Amino acid sequence: MKKAIVLYSGGLDSTTCVAIARAAGYEVYGLSFSYGQRHSIELECAKKFAPQLGIAKHLILDVDMRQIGGSALTADIAVPENRPIDDEIPITYVPARNTVFLAYALAWAEAMQSFDIYIGVNAVDYSGYPDCRPEFIQAFTQMANLATKAAVEKQGRYTVHTPLMHMSKAQIIHTGTQLGIDYALTHSCYAPDSQGRACGVCDSCVLRLKGFREAGMQDPVTYTTVSGE
Amino acid sequence: MKKAIVLYSGGLDSTTCVAIARAAGYEVYGLSFSYGQRHSIELECAKKFAPQLGIAKHLILDVDMRQIGGSALTADIAVPENRPIDDEIPITYVPARNTVFLAYALAWAEAMQSFDIYIGVNAVDYSGYPDCRPEFIQAFTQMANLATKAAVEKQGRYTVHTPLMHMSKAQIIHTGTQLGIDYALTHSCYAPDSQGRACGVCDSCVLRLKGFREAGMQDPVTYTTVSGE
Repeated sequence: MKKAIVLYSGGLDSTTCVAIARAAGYEVYGLSFSYGQRHSIELECAKKFAPQLGIAKHLILDVDMRQIGGSALTADIAVPENRPIDDEIPITYVPARNTVFLAYALAWAEAMQSFDIYIGVNAVDYSGYPDCRPEFIQAFTQMANLATKAAVEKQGRYTVHTPLMHMSKAQIIHTGTQLGIDYALTHSCYAPDSQGRACGVCDSCVLRLKGFREAGMQDPVTYTTVSGE
Repeated sequence: MKKAIVLYSGGLDSTTCVAIARAAGYEVYGLSFSYGQRHSIELECAKKFAPQLGIAKHLILDVDMRQIGGSALTADIAVPENRPIDDEIPITYVPARNTVFLAYALAWAEAMQSFDIYIGVNAVDYSGYPDCRPEFIQAFTQMANLATKAAVEKQGRYTVHTPLMHMSKAQIIHTGTQLGIDYALTHSCYAPDSQGRACGVCDSCVLRLKGFREAGMQDPVTYTTVSGE
């Protein structure tokens, strides 16, 4: 069985990626990061639900992006509420985060003799992060094929799969539902309360709720407030 | 004063890079990694000598490559002795190591509003690592300019400086000496003994000793054995 490394945060998108990779016939190696994120409940969900999602091996790497700074997700800056989703890159952007995450995924892929990496980036309903765009993924793949012993010795070529890239949030939810995902097993909020309830007003909640509305479905997670948008 | 992030391990090459970046007028931000390497004395040297080398800020990030596995440098595999330096990629290769290191350098550069990264890779007297070649560095730079908010918002373009790329080890030692480096403040061995003395027989020691011989100089560090090569 071919192996795939799936960047798996425990959120809606990456959990859908796990289901897509399994449906494509891969044995899934789930990679999560503890990076000083405020929303560490996402990581607890990831750990708890990995076996139920059919993840063969789950690795959580500690990468302290807090020491690097520069983001509302890892530093002591307020997360914006009900921000209009526009073309501006928000302060929740973490410097070079997907570059760091994909670099680790590449390292693990090489060590496990896998040539397939899945990442749940999306260019439609997204927050404007530059490291979610197709041109970034393409450039990363080119670099990966020059960076590694496995590629240089011609055992294979890396593919970074981005199955969600051109899907709307509603399409992602429909796809995952068809593949049997229970979205109660996912968590997306950037600023949950102490009981882990989603805020309903951060970028991530706003996009998620909009997705469920457009999919004509009820989001099974609990919110403290729900955006009026 | 313009800032540069310098990947600084405490070894001969990266210490020379620090001196070159300073001579080019940069304020140097030294970035080291604790990655489960056997030769952690290199890191202790790095920490101890950073102020003497004029490093403005020194950041040591904990990145546990041991959890990823696949290398003699981080796993329980013997480091080869007196191996002929040929075209084969040795087992001291760490999967995607320079990709991970440069990804962090990029993250710190962006957070510090720097567009310059120095890395002491070398394509002449090297161990055959794919992630030390010019084509890898070029591909990384292209990716960096697509990955980051700073580059996308056109505040600048990243440059990954590789001043040692086409120098022999002897040329590196001459350059550093001219810039005032005391190479007693560096450490290169992959497998030092408990007192921190270099083994003299690993790839790194063999290349270093050859460099000093060719430079017509005496290596100031202490060795337990000296390669007969």
